[in-house]
Amino acid sequence: MASIKNIVFIGAGKVGTHLAEALFDAHIHIAGIYSQNKENAYLLAQKYQSEWGDLASIKTHDTDLIIVSVPDNALKEVLKQIPQTNALIVHTSGSINMNALDMFERTGIFYPLQTFSKDKKVDFSTIPLMIESHHQDDLVLLEELATLITKKVYHINSYQRKKIHIAAVFANNFSNSLFLIAADLLAKENIPFEVIQPLIAETADKLKELHPYDAQTGPALRNDQKTIEEHLNSLNETPEYQEIYKLLSQQITQSRKTK
Amino acid sequence: MASIKNIVFIGAGKVGTHLAEALFDAHIHIAGIYSQNKENAYLLAQKYQSEWGDLASIKTHDTDLIIVSVPDNALKEVLKQIPQTNALIVHTSGSINMNALDMFERTGIFYPLQTFSKDKKVDFSTIPLMIESHHQDDLVLLEELATLITKKVYHINSYQRKKIHIAAVFANNFSNSLFLIAADLLAKENIPFEVIQPLIAETADKLKELHPYDAQTGPALRNDQKTIEEHLNSLNETPEYQEIYKLLSQQITQSRKTK
Repeated sequence: MASIKNIVFIGAGKVGTHLAEALFDAHIHIAGIYSQNKENAYLLAQKYQSEWGDLASIKTHDTDLIIVSVPDNALKEVLKQIPQTNALIVHTSGSINMNALDMFERTGIFYPLQTFSKDKKVDFSTIPLMIESHHQDDLVLLEELATLITKKVYHINSYQRKKIHIAAVFANNFSNSLFLIAADLLAKENIPFEVIQPLIAETADKLKELHPYDAQTGPALRNDQKTIEEHLNSLNETPEYQEIYKLLSQQITQSRKTK
Repeated sequence: MASIKNIVFIGAGKVGTHLAEALFDAHIHIAGIYSQNKENAYLLAQKYQSEWGDLASIKTHDTDLIIVSVPDNALKEVLKQIPQTNALIVHTSGSINMNALDMFERTGIFYPLQTFSKDKKVDFSTIPLMIESHHQDDLVLLEELATLITKKVYHINSYQRKKIHIAAVFANNFSNSLFLIAADLLAKENIPFEVIQPLIAETADKLKELHPYDAQTGPALRNDQKTIEEHLNSLNETPEYQEIYKLLSQQITQSRKTK
């Protein structure tokens, strides 16, 4: 069976950019890059000597795989602009069901579970990549491709992928919102955010060795009501922080009971 | 002025153990280690050739500094067991006011802002150390000592320290509770926690370069109501997770309005 040799990217955002880089480094040919934002497509295409253009100029002939990597709420409209094709077509979203691609013949998912920043290089080989396809042959093609860029390939269906995406929202988006609260509490006292950076780094680093159940510490875990009360009083100018403090303390207490 | 050469530790828990190790490595003599748990005191004393014993046997003669590092709710009772002394006496708690030590003449604070694990070595030189004392001479002594073990020494009063401790509860305890929710959501689908570890590591790592305000991503930030609704529906078997999801999404939305 043939393997994937030529890829067209639709979308040139953070996920597409990082994926294209990893695949290019693995000697895959990036045949074309098309984006609503022509400038982004052009910049990326320059690096990989790819064809490029806006969504009206998508060319998919001689392509083995089309990777659609656009914002979730743009996917539906973008798909309408892709010409009918015999190539395998995948999207990279954590939350959208594979059946969103049903107007195409050969479909799949190629979802890297990571948060990407515009200018921060990541080591792709450690990133979990979730793949899915209706057809065994296409799944094998995706697996071959995935193993070129990461050691961590998972066969995950759309239902599981949605659950993973929700877990990622808690682990990434919501934890970041707590780091922002911490930064704000410090800023109110004119204390720089850097003071708390080593704590955040160690909080994450611990989880390389410990399950979060075993890494849990703090007043709520010790059921230290005196400290909890003092903290809540101290937060009385920010009732929204008080509410989050109460709810997460309650969650920590509850998590010990149900285990 | 003399500097601190001999230290007595009261308490042999995680903070005391890591502090003792860092100070010993900086060639400070650990003269004695006393703990409610005699076994802990003994084990540590063996390493540093210190005197040791339970709280009834505390000796503080010829000591420059006494570091009391015990659980917050034990501090009051432990202090009663310390003989009157001319030595400087400090505690290591984030949340207890310095005036808790007022029965002693020379008092202060020596608070390392970090989460310590029993068997996980930390690089103390990167840990922020918060010091405080009523007397300028004693503050200088603490600063000299602190700079032996870390590059990051901050003069912080008890009011600020409490605020920092609350920020640390959000950044460490509460974010860990979200990682536990993520782990639980994955476990329900028989997906191993390791799948989400690289995401957690990168979430923290980003904050070495970005302020959490700029690192924020996700459905709530994009005001992607469709995805938020789907996630909430998908969480209908865990109403406590739904509530946290709603509150933190609201917090993310709110944080953009007030900036």
